[in-house]
Amino acid sequence: MAGHGYESGRLNLPFVGICTFGKAPFQPNWDAIDADVAVLGAPFDFGTQWRAGARMGPRAIREASTLFSFGHGGAYDFEDDITYLPAETTRILDIGDADIVHTDTLKSHANIEFGVRKILEAGALPVVLGGDHSVNIPCINAFAGQDPIHVVQIDAHLDFVDERHGVRYGHGNPMRRAAEKPYVTGLSQIGIRNVSSTAKEGYEAARAMGSDIQSVRHFRKLGVDGMLARIPEGARYYLTIDIDGFDPSIAPGTGTPSHGGFYYYEILELIDGLAKRGTIVGIDLVEVAPDYDPTGSTSVLAAQLLMNTIGRVLYHRG
Amino acid sequence: MAGHGYESGRLNLPFVGICTFGKAPFQPNWDAIDADVAVLGAPFDFGTQWRAGARMGPRAIREASTLFSFGHGGAYDFEDDITYLPAETTRILDIGDADIVHTDTLKSHANIEFGVRKILEAGALPVVLGGDHSVNIPCINAFAGQDPIHVVQIDAHLDFVDERHGVRYGHGNPMRRAAEKPYVTGLSQIGIRNVSSTAKEGYEAARAMGSDIQSVRHFRKLGVDGMLARIPEGARYYLTIDIDGFDPSIAPGTGTPSHGGFYYYEILELIDGLAKRGTIVGIDLVEVAPDYDPTGSTSVLAAQLLMNTIGRVLYHRG
Amino acid sequence: MAGHGYESGRLNLPFVGICTFGKAPFQPNWDAIDADVAVLGAPFDFGTQWRAGARMGPRAIREASTLFSFGHGGAYDFEDDITYLPAETTRILDIGDADIVHTDTLKSHANIEFGVRKILEAGALPVVLGGDHSVNIPCINAFAGQDPIHVVQIDAHLDFVDERHGVRYGHGNPMRRAAEKPYVTGLSQIGIRNVSSTAKEGYEAARAMGSDIQSVRHFRKLGVDGMLARIPEGARYYLTIDIDGFDPSIAPGTGTPSHGGFYYYEILELIDGLAKRGTIVGIDLVEVAPDYDPTGSTSVLAAQLLMNTIGRVLYHRG
Amino acid sequence: MAGHGYESGRLNLPFVGICTFGKAPFQPNWDAIDADVAVLGAPFDFGTQWRAGARMGPRAIREASTLFSFGHGGAYDFEDDITYLPAETTRILDIGDADIVHTDTLKSHANIEFGVRKILEAGALPVVLGGDHSVNIPCINAFAGQDPIHVVQIDAHLDFVDERHGVRYGHGNPMRRAAEKPYVTGLSQIGIRNVSSTAKEGYEAARAMGSDIQSVRHFRKLGVDGMLARIPEGARYYLTIDIDGFDPSIAPGTGTPSHGGFYYYEILELIDGLAKRGTIVGIDLVEVAPDYDPTGSTSVLAAQLLMNTIGRVLYHRG
Amino acid sequence: MAGHGYESGRLNLPFVGICTFGKAPFQPNWDAIDADVAVLGAPFDFGTQWRAGARMGPRAIREASTLFSFGHGGAYDFEDDITYLPAETTRILDIGDADIVHTDTLKSHANIEFGVRKILEAGALPVVLGGDHSVNIPCINAFAGQDPIHVVQIDAHLDFVDERHGVRYGHGNPMRRAAEKPYVTGLSQIGIRNVSSTAKEGYEAARAMGSDIQSVRHFRKLGVDGMLARIPEGARYYLTIDIDGFDPSIAPGTGTPSHGGFYYYEILELIDGLAKRGTIVGIDLVEVAPDYDPTGSTSVLAAQLLMNTIGRVLYHRG
Amino acid sequence: MAGHGYESGRLNLPFVGICTFGKAPFQPNWDAIDADVAVLGAPFDFGTQWRAGARMGPRAIREASTLFSFGHGGAYDFEDDITYLPAETTRILDIGDADIVHTDTLKSHANIEFGVRKILEAGALPVVLGGDHSVNIPCINAFAGQDPIHVVQIDAHLDFVDERHGVRYGHGNPMRRAAEKPYVTGLSQIGIRNVSSTAKEGYEAARAMGSDIQSVRHFRKLGVDGMLARIPEGARYYLTIDIDGFDPSIAPGTGTPSHGGFYYYEILELIDGLAKRGTIVGIDLVEVAPDYDPTGSTSVLAAQLLMNTIGRVLYHRG
Repeated sequence: MAGHGYESGRLNLPFVGICTFGKAPFQPNWDAIDADVAVLGAPFDFGTQWRAGARMGPRAIREASTLFSFGHGGAYDFEDDITYLPAETTRILDIGDADIVHTDTLKSHANIEFGVRKILEAGALPVVLGGDHSVNIPCINAFAGQDPIHVVQIDAHLDFVDERHGVRYGHGNPMRRAAEKPYVTGLSQIGIRNVSSTAKEGYEAARAMGSDIQSVRHFRKLGVDGMLARIPEGARYYLTIDIDGFDPSIAPGTGTPSHGGFYYYEILELIDGLAKRGTIVGIDLVEVAPDYDPTGSTSVLAAQLLMNTIGRVLYHRG
Repeated sequence: MAGHGYESGRLNLPFVGICTFGKAPFQPNWDAIDADVAVLGAPFDFGTQWRAGARMGPRAIREASTLFSFGHGGAYDFEDDITYLPAETTRILDIGDADIVHTDTLKSHANIEFGVRKILEAGALPVVLGGDHSVNIPCINAFAGQDPIHVVQIDAHLDFVDERHGVRYGHGNPMRRAAEKPYVTGLSQIGIRNVSSTAKEGYEAARAMGSDIQSVRHFRKLGVDGMLARIPEGARYYLTIDIDGFDPSIAPGTGTPSHGGFYYYEILELIDGLAKRGTIVGIDLVEVAPDYDPTGSTSVLAAQLLMNTIGRVLYHRG
Repeated sequence: MAGHGYESGRLNLPFVGICTFGKAPFQPNWDAIDADVAVLGAPFDFGTQWRAGARMGPRAIREASTLFSFGHGGAYDFEDDITYLPAETTRILDIGDADIVHTDTLKSHANIEFGVRKILEAGALPVVLGGDHSVNIPCINAFAGQDPIHVVQIDAHLDFVDERHGVRYGHGNPMRRAAEKPYVTGLSQIGIRNVSSTAKEGYEAARAMGSDIQSVRHFRKLGVDGMLARIPEGARYYLTIDIDGFDPSIAPGTGTPSHGGFYYYEILELIDGLAKRGTIVGIDLVEVAPDYDPTGSTSVLAAQLLMNTIGRVLYHRG
Repeated sequence: MAGHGYESGRLNLPFVGICTFGKAPFQPNWDAIDADVAVLGAPFDFGTQWRAGARMGPRAIREASTLFSFGHGGAYDFEDDITYLPAETTRILDIGDADIVHTDTLKSHANIEFGVRKILEAGALPVVLGGDHSVNIPCINAFAGQDPIHVVQIDAHLDFVDERHGVRYGHGNPMRRAAEKPYVTGLSQIGIRNVSSTAKEGYEAARAMGSDIQSVRHFRKLGVDGMLARIPEGARYYLTIDIDGFDPSIAPGTGTPSHGGFYYYEILELIDGLAKRGTIVGIDLVEVAPDYDPTGSTSVLAAQLLMNTIGRVLYHRG
Repeated sequence: MAGHGYESGRLNLPFVGICTFGKAPFQPNWDAIDADVAVLGAPFDFGTQWRAGARMGPRAIREASTLFSFGHGGAYDFEDDITYLPAETTRILDIGDADIVHTDTLKSHANIEFGVRKILEAGALPVVLGGDHSVNIPCINAFAGQDPIHVVQIDAHLDFVDERHGVRYGHGNPMRRAAEKPYVTGLSQIGIRNVSSTAKEGYEAARAMGSDIQSVRHFRKLGVDGMLARIPEGARYYLTIDIDGFDPSIAPGTGTPSHGGFYYYEILELIDGLAKRGTIVGIDLVEVAPDYDPTGSTSVLAAQLLMNTIGRVLYHRG
Repeated sequence: MAGHGYESGRLNLPFVGICTFGKAPFQPNWDAIDADVAVLGAPFDFGTQWRAGARMGPRAIREASTLFSFGHGGAYDFEDDITYLPAETTRILDIGDADIVHTDTLKSHANIEFGVRKILEAGALPVVLGGDHSVNIPCINAFAGQDPIHVVQIDAHLDFVDERHGVRYGHGNPMRRAAEKPYVTGLSQIGIRNVSSTAKEGYEAARAMGSDIQSVRHFRKLGVDGMLARIPEGARYYLTIDIDGFDPSIAPGTGTPSHGGFYYYEILELIDGLAKRGTIVGIDLVEVAPDYDPTGSTSVLAAQLLMNTIGRVLYHRG
């Protein structure tokens, strides 16, 4: 009989094992977070205005992330000649999901905020998996009391609606809510394009409240370096990535897709530059809706981008 | 050149035309409902506890219903030797959807209730397309001030939770809310089975508040006539059909499927009997979630059942 | 109880309501078309040579178009700083579908032609939703008796077959049929590439009959302005968009996809230029086959492009 | 190095190899059909009235049929204790598809008829894979000049429309066309149910022209033997199986599904009885539409039923 | 601000949280298994003969199982009036997956056997999630040295091939391998039907080696009690469930579906009876292939059946 | 009656007929290969490390290739003004699949090698359809005894793992196995990017053993001509195309997708240049996994690329 694999460690192929983010250890005790990075799911989608299903985003991203957890001592990128996420020093935990209460937006948001606060209290970098973009609201809330932050948003939509029919905490409102915070020093809103839920007044209000709004075509004219130059240097960045900032060709699995979006390396290079230009202190990636992602392409994009982002953040932080 | 079809009327194949329910006329003016039956969409799904997407139920059911609108003067059923829904006398309107407000359960429910009240005021039979089962709550609310009703529920789940974590208007609560109404004289809860979200206390409370609870296996032992005999004769029935009362083999497209459910004719025969035994005064069909229905089988079931139900209600009403 | 939304108008989220194109009013009476733009479905697909299903194109495009009907007084494009489709002055109607007769190509085509003639008689801009590309044949037929037109085609395939096995009205024939018309002054055939159903003779015939044939790579070398310069200025343009002119990455849901196609902004910018360069007097968008579009990406592309096209046509027409 | 498998024959797993029906030899020369059974594809679907796509039926059925071609000397059925389709004596050929001409119903039908005539001339049993049910029309036409036949139809729909808007050869017409033939002595129409495209007049005409019409519920009351007793004994049967005669739970992949249909063994036992009661001289299986069959369940049903049917026909023929 | 949910425990909706089986605690240390039941994934599928993909079975079943983990103190079944899996006394662990080595069947099987042995050493009931049916081979191997067992198999296929082209450990071989064991006292093979990979000799060998072979139709004639009566009373049962024993209508997501299979309650009642008739000492559930299960119906069936089975095993064990 | 099509040849639409590659003649007798090109399927996928299903690749590619077999005397490319694959002189055969033995990697590989050797002995160009990338190992083995070859690999992954847990013939090993061959003079590894299964040591070993490694971004900086210049001129090239070298936007249907890949024309132009620069003596295209390709986009890409590649190889060979 062939010997079993446990004598010499496990091969641990991607399709094997429980789906935590990147197969990181699972820590359900939020008073015992001891890590550099803590991943929290925020499976909330009552804030959506067209297709729902982002509640399943955290599960899909976790599943996809197992593809990138080969565990060969880290993730070697031969173009950079760097091994990111070296096994011996990388401390990532998956702390599970915030408790979501159906029919109740405020209570669900409060539970998300509670989780992010726990991560910040532990001194770890919060990485939040949405859920719809409204989950950014409690994430930003959790930074109250912290040093000021500059918000960098990758998105097709401005999400700067103040209030409509009483709604202030839906997925069209988060950037407005963020801009209202005294500890948010400004916003870089990148990828905004074409038809949107925000009317002309929203754009004007955003600019008045400190936003730099750039479309995909603007970005391409500026180049990555030109875009980076418009973002305050040396700041603390909160990075919020709406997956619909990407082109529907690679990110079809989202509630409100918009054609004409970003490709993979455009944003990876922007984030790489951002990680060098200042300090990324919080991340959320939202609006992955697996029901519209039959090939898994969108979840793989989210996972691939987050793994590379976390690797670069940790590497450049030193 | 061949003559065009308008000289002699349209052939009007199922795949041709705008998708109202059964290709009925669309009446967006709710002060001008002049019909025997009015169909209202209630695309609300923030009340779900597992998979979302029931918000797209009304659209999917309307699309599927076009298959059953051949328009040959009615729907001839050779087994009954009856032409249901005869073209010359059938007056059905599709009045569109209730206005749904993302993040806001109470406001959305209020809008649904408003629509059902408008239908009742017009003297038409309300047929509401969910949305999740919580939309039954405003439907029942709209019957306040009307003569008493007996609720007949087809469902896998008891939906009799009083309150949990503050939630009283989710899709696990509607039958409890209904039972609390003074004008609800009783409930027949049919198809209830296996693992559920309702604990033992819920079953006891339901029985105490006037419910007759029957599983699929109970139903089969009783037979259709035996089941009908347990429902008060000559009453005004409100019929609420959760599509997950049916077996996942024919109704996979739903948020919380449960194996071991009903087949088509079992319920059609029950409804046929109900239409003869008393007066069906309101109908909702909920929990169709098209994202989980790639073949369209679930939407077709919902449409086929509703068309046949409406036909029988109108026929036996005389 | 929370107030319902009808006191202050409806929020009218994209997922709410009957699916007409852009939620425009539905006008089934073709003798009462009073609008600037009239949208007509042409759900015909017996002309296809590989995968069928384009008959469901009109329904899918209408459903997708509801995403772009936020109804905030128009569609504000911050890059152009223009609000297209301003609510107060935009008059679009959806007039439903042409009557299709199964097994009968000529009768179905005649019914499509009848509908387009009705739109033209009413002085509205016809926007026809296919169906396969053969529906362009009756569309062009309907322009008999009008001032001359120049056809601008976006497509992967030349569609210039004269006759094969007796077939003259399939989806490989429309540009040949158009070129034969005395009132068609020329054709710009853009996006043509790679393997195709048209043999060498077809290309030669097309050029001989007045076509300018440009591939995607040609287009990219020319640039949008260079391409526009090859199209007669100040003419009346009939715009026929085969969705397979786009790349399968964003338009997989079509019968005969061909890799190496256009991206979104390439064509939007071309159309924007065309709207400024002359008068667009007719539009069809064909070959959306939803059965091959599980993410909805293709339908969203069609809807997004048409909404932006109509907005630009109306805006530049003044 | 391990030895390759060709020394001792091939294992020939189901997923290996070119997809002919049951991996039977492919014979493209229709003048050289030398077999007991010849399988012909008829990928025509312009006769459909709702969802198209049956043109891909032959390919899907062939692919699914490879699951049932294990090639262990035959198909042993332990319940019957019979090895059907014994390798040494079974002579089945796949002769490919009839030539279909897009836009042209009559020419396509003529080509199907030509193929069936070739099979009959060769003395083989024709097994035709649809395509929509209109392909039955040329199949029956091909029996002109043969001894009389009795048609046994498994179907949800009566398909007995005479003519509507000029259509006489669509998928709602075949049984009417068959009943008109002098060499068709009668029809047994089994599985007919619920809403249909045939109006009351169609049922009356069918009975007047010699049909015995039985619903699924009738069939279940009669039992297989009771049903068989209503079919003329010792006759030559032409068996036409519309896959929508089966329940959508096992046959969702079809154009016009209808709930409340047959299960697998009900029809297998009927066919087994038929093979014993007389001579099955022709078979078509129609309306498999793979675009609506994401699990492959429908194609597997078609293939499994046909393999078992052919096995029983050959066995009982002796 | 609304209070967060942590003050009073979590609501813990099904769609929230990491996907272990039934949201049971995860125990990656196999030397620290302290539980009544231990769930092990065996994501191996190189033994399949048609469609692959069963390697993703454990993930899909775990995900589906979260629907059945409402956590209201147990799973109340009102038909039995029993609360199965009471929260206070139920000790289930998910120990993750066996290490699978691509290209290497023997090493992968050895790793599965190692995991089952660890569970048995800990005195827990092993519940193994396949993977293809070949994973049953190492499961049975792990029982060497234990008291004798009787194997109860639910399956469409006999899986009794001895050796073919050198293959002895594929998914067509496990029951033969089991029957060879001295500690396997007999087999009850239930659900076997129609075309199969096992030839006549296999059936004869099975019977000679102690198998009782019953088809679905046999089972229905016997009834649950009649079937139970054929299984030795008071024995130690090893239960192996191939999901293709169920009907494709509820279990389409499997590699080699076969029409005419079991429905849910037939097998639940059989297992309920088995749990009362003797001691179930090991369970595997195999051949769930999520790629062919777009609705999730198959995974839900597997999860629902396992939850109910474990509940009954623990309850009747006392 | 309309005449049937056989008098004047067949129209032979893409959706008609048996699915061999490009509808080429099928030659199951491997001792009778008389052709310029022979296509062999290698449906093996036990070498995969994440998602399986590449075993169905050959079938999907064959099916898709029928779209490109219009049969109008060849494939006219108007950009090149060349008719590739002229009907009168093109001799392509489909010889079916290598025999695959489940659970047995070495035997399956041996059978693939046997098939390629047969093709080479017949003097034809082998075109192998995977299957996972490990099938490249037997393909390269079959070139033992031939003149030296230079391997050109299009891929996202380096596939240069020597041995891990005993695995030497999985889909992460083929380029290492190739580099070890004395008759492999070097490798051009193109498209390699981002996170991968190969650790830093693998890259170093590859370079040491003669590899030129270029990422997608490197390729774009070099341009097609720059890239070609790095490949030895006038050599015999073996071209191995892992479909995941392409971007997931056009090739989602693969086991281990990686964002940031190639577009269609980039690789077509590279291959066109390669066909002019030397002699392509063998081709494999691997890792098409149709279960993740619901739109067919990936299979169409594989078929379109192979048809164009074969056309160019034959044309430039003269």
